[in-house]
Amino acid sequence: MAVDPARLEQALTEGALAEDTVRRIVREEIERAFKKDPAKKRAAIIASKGTLDWAYPPLILANAAAAAGMETAVFFTFYGLNIIHKDFEKRIKVGPIGNPAMPMPIPMPQILTAMPGMVPMATAMMKSKFKGKGVASIGQLLDAARESGVRLIACQMTMEVFGFDEREFIDGVEFAGAGAFMSDARQAHVTLFI
Amino acid sequence: MAVDPARLEQALTEGALAEDTVRRIVREEIERAFKKDPAKKRAAIIASKGTLDWAYPPLILANAAAAAGMETAVFFTFYGLNIIHKDFEKRIKVGPIGNPAMPMPIPMPQILTAMPGMVPMATAMMKSKFKGKGVASIGQLLDAARESGVRLIACQMTMEVFGFDEREFIDGVEFAGAGAFMSDARQAHVTLFI
Amino acid sequence: MAVDPARLEQALTEGALAEDTVRRIVREEIERAFKKDPAKKRAAIIASKGTLDWAYPPLILANAAAAAGMETAVFFTFYGLNIIHKDFEKRIKVGPIGNPAMPMPIPMPQILTAMPGMVPMATAMMKSKFKGKGVASIGQLLDAARESGVRLIACQMTMEVFGFDEREFIDGVEFAGAGAFMSDARQAHVTLFI
Repeated sequence: MAVDPARLEQALTEGALAEDTVRRIVREEIERAFKKDPAKKRAAIIASKGTLDWAYPPLILANAAAAAGMETAVFFTFYGLNIIHKDFEKRIKVGPIGNPAMPMPIPMPQILTAMPGMVPMATAMMKSKFKGKGVASIGQLLDAARESGVRLIACQMTMEVFGFDEREFIDGVEFAGAGAFMSDARQAHVTLFI
Repeated sequence: MAVDPARLEQALTEGALAEDTVRRIVREEIERAFKKDPAKKRAAIIASKGTLDWAYPPLILANAAAAAGMETAVFFTFYGLNIIHKDFEKRIKVGPIGNPAMPMPIPMPQILTAMPGMVPMATAMMKSKFKGKGVASIGQLLDAARESGVRLIACQMTMEVFGFDEREFIDGVEFAGAGAFMSDARQAHVTLFI
Repeated sequence: MAVDPARLEQALTEGALAEDTVRRIVREEIERAFKKDPAKKRAAIIASKGTLDWAYPPLILANAAAAAGMETAVFFTFYGLNIIHKDFEKRIKVGPIGNPAMPMPIPMPQILTAMPGMVPMATAMMKSKFKGKGVASIGQLLDAARESGVRLIACQMTMEVFGFDEREFIDGVEFAGAGAFMSDARQAHVTLFI
């Protein structure tokens, strides 16, 4: 029935250390927790442009995030709705006009970049450049995204404004508003407007 | 004066469990804390474009963030300064040129999109489309933002470069530099450059 | 050998409070930890545009982040590769075409903005405006970034697509893929696509 006084003494002494010990444990656990901060595992990307050059980045980055094990959502809004349209192949084009940084086969003044034929030419050129270097096409990137669980969300407000119907979009697309993007994004470190 | 030996025994035994118990408590508290990570409650948005199409997204997203209870700041820089200018109605326009993704009433070659009259036409068309679908105008979005406490900050450096004066901006605008944006943004999950 | 019963009583009573005390300590430590959340000290920026106006923001914001003590990485991709090209002075231009928000010396219809000579004129005008207001040039911003430890990373995939060679870039540039950006970005509150 008697408690060993040495054990008692130790317990009391350790009790006196408790706060320090607790703080040490707490700091260890917090450091560990910040290393696996859940916000590191989520990405929320807005795809707002409808040209070929700006269709690649949201899909490439979403696939990179998914490959890194992140829960990833892409919110398609404004011109970006074209990327997930069933006719994306026809709708997603690129032109050199207004972008003096676009590489052209021969140097030309800006006025020529507005001439008929420049958009199809630049679109074909960019597609062939990407394909020649082994980069996946928009269709392949969309497939990869869906296979790896990336959520593709069409913005309902801009769908209405631009007159799109739900049936015009590829399979697997969800429909939601800006609030939906915000509730994904507030939980994510990676938030990008493209 | 005598301590109940059973209570003593229990205390000593529980003391032996302390580290496990403490770690359990700590993990519970950390999980709870990450659910209400303060970074989830802040949004920092840069509005850098001065066209009508790119004036909507920062205001719509800022209002969505505020509606979700987030402390929200929008930093207006470069062409984005036009959005909070007193004359925003006249300054914020949109044109189809250089954007093959913009829906036009009739298909036309890019060269025609550069013709006189296209910017006013496209601007009127976009305003009427948005209004027709019940989307708030830029003026209404600015009012809603200010009413819900969204901070509107004009970039002092680009104000100087483009020759703007503080009195040219709408009421309630603050004035600060890029460092100010960074100190909002580093505390926020949602950080967007639009 | 006898343990002071008063001390024993106090230890047992405090032991009974342990969980509350531990939770208080834990909450204090967590609050402190969130104030110095490591994600507040990192910024990951994508520079994707190759025009003069959009070359400033990634460099200005990266320098602002570094000045605030943040570990900062800029990932140059697509047209943004021009910013870190040895010939950036010649490659980084700006034109008014397609941007009705760009201030011009005299009002003009959009078709005129496509005329030969407009890109060099607008580029010279913007450079002189920025210089006249004491804003650092692109070259100076790149130097400042490297001096303050900002990592400049060229996207390998788009280097291949656009036919760039590692030797074409300024000193200090690193080479990596989209996965590299994602591993910086997931640890950072500030993530921007410019």
